[in-house]
Amino acid sequence: MIIALSGGIGGAKLALGLSHVLPPEELLIIANTGDDFEHYGLTICPDIDTLTYTLAGLDNPHLGWGRADESWAFMQTLAALGGPEWFRLGDRDLALHVLRSHRLHAGETLSVITDDVRKRFGIGLRILPMSDDPVRTQINTDKGWLDFQDWFVRQRAEPLAQAVRFAGVEQARPQPALLDALRAKPRGIVICPSNPFISIEPILAVPGLREAIKASGAPVVAVSPIIAGQAVKGPTARMFEALGVTPSAAAVAARYGDLLHGFVMEHGDDAAGIAPRVFYATTLMRDLADKINLARQVVAAVDAL
Amino acid sequence: MIIALSGGIGGAKLALGLSHVLPPEELLIIANTGDDFEHYGLTICPDIDTLTYTLAGLDNPHLGWGRADESWAFMQTLAALGGPEWFRLGDRDLALHVLRSHRLHAGETLSVITDDVRKRFGIGLRILPMSDDPVRTQINTDKGWLDFQDWFVRQRAEPLAQAVRFAGVEQARPQPALLDALRAKPRGIVICPSNPFISIEPILAVPGLREAIKASGAPVVAVSPIIAGQAVKGPTARMFEALGVTPSAAAVAARYGDLLHGFVMEHGDDAAGIAPRVFYATTLMRDLADKINLARQVVAAVDAL
Repeated sequence: MIIALSGGIGGAKLALGLSHVLPPEELLIIANTGDDFEHYGLTICPDIDTLTYTLAGLDNPHLGWGRADESWAFMQTLAALGGPEWFRLGDRDLALHVLRSHRLHAGETLSVITDDVRKRFGIGLRILPMSDDPVRTQINTDKGWLDFQDWFVRQRAEPLAQAVRFAGVEQARPQPALLDALRAKPRGIVICPSNPFISIEPILAVPGLREAIKASGAPVVAVSPIIAGQAVKGPTARMFEALGVTPSAAAVAARYGDLLHGFVMEHGDDAAGIAPRVFYATTLMRDLADKINLARQVVAAVDAL
Repeated sequence: MIIALSGGIGGAKLALGLSHVLPPEELLIIANTGDDFEHYGLTICPDIDTLTYTLAGLDNPHLGWGRADESWAFMQTLAALGGPEWFRLGDRDLALHVLRSHRLHAGETLSVITDDVRKRFGIGLRILPMSDDPVRTQINTDKGWLDFQDWFVRQRAEPLAQAVRFAGVEQARPQPALLDALRAKPRGIVICPSNPFISIEPILAVPGLREAIKASGAPVVAVSPIIAGQAVKGPTARMFEALGVTPSAAAVAARYGDLLHGFVMEHGDDAAGIAPRVFYATTLMRDLADKINLARQVVAAVDAL
């Protein structure tokens, strides 16, 4: 079993690649839920949904969120009625939010609902939230602490992120199936090329998870989301800069510290000072072939350790 | 001021007619909320919505519910995810349900939300729920007590209705703006051609409302929803039959008892035994001209009393 820790779009791309090189029963995707939020009565789980839509082949690669075959009648009407417009909910996407919100309210766990949904979408492999307990990432800015989606979507990640916290994480219990998988001598653990601060660290902050990863004895391999000092997408580079750290693959590796045994980074980037074993690869994933190719190299790195 | 008590489609037709013959500030529509229900996390108010869509010119006359310019992407996706299909929610219609549910949950009253929505839809006259407190009609059948929409929509009103009750009505407070209007010497009170059992009697069952109507001193005129022994739409006729009463205009008038001063019924129907003053009219409303014509005759009946 390979366990992949993932945020949204970058992680989902690698997860899709991994799903093409591993049988579904040998791959477990763990999704960040720190950017989940309650919006207008609905519980929305952006990273779970991006993973689900991507693995189902329903994702919208142009937007980077939501579904490709989407319509906007709901959103237009909601706006006409004075409802909020800053978080856009497509008609089809909305069905998932309404279904999940209702089932959560009825007492089902997020993991049971997520697993049911991925099966309904024909996805063979498991996608599980890092925890069934709510964890909510918040960003400290010169406007004070902002809820993650307020900062990320409504304010376009523009207010400088001075600090990040994960509200509720102290009370969050790790996903039991993840602990089981970690105890069952996994082949390896992959940290997808997601934003360390807001996609991976919420997962690692769930009490006991970092320790369980270490105790598994499995090789841990991260893939750099920084290529030539730039983030492929999103605020990763700016978040390093706000900490006074020059964005680089090495800065990502340093962020994960002694958790890593291996680090996959772009050909030509500077590996100076990176402690884990470095594997060079083409990490920019433009098409499915890129995703599969990177997945193969990541699995090879896991197996080399 | 004319105050019109209304259920869904039949009442909404007359309300539309009345809106063409009275200035908006001289007409107040009171909507039945007994068929409101909680569905998959959403609070749905079918009669308020039928009135709102009809008065906004957005109604779907073919379906008799929902909007004319509707799409079904949400519903198709919800069904694919295993969600319930028996109550159909269009993409545009859904925006109203999500908005209302969220605002109710945030502590706003149904009347404030309803008033805001009708303004957003460009409706000049007020539509108010009979009460801001939840009242839920239930139907006793050979399957036991069923929630109204379960009986009406899911089971197509097929189980014979042996009795009707309005759960919560004892605790429901009448709409304050309605009590104000009743105290302000209204020109008349119109009972729309709606189903007495499930559209009008829930309104009259709100504690104090029947008394306030009587105390207003205004003429009360009902319009028969039964024409030649048949209901124009819905289960009205069958509900009379289940009580052992032959469906007729006279049976409707008898149902309202001494509340009525006038009764508007179809030309040629039998007025024998009807206690209030009878006004014959063309009560079948096929087009806007029919609605306006009937509204004129109803207002004339009010003024004649």
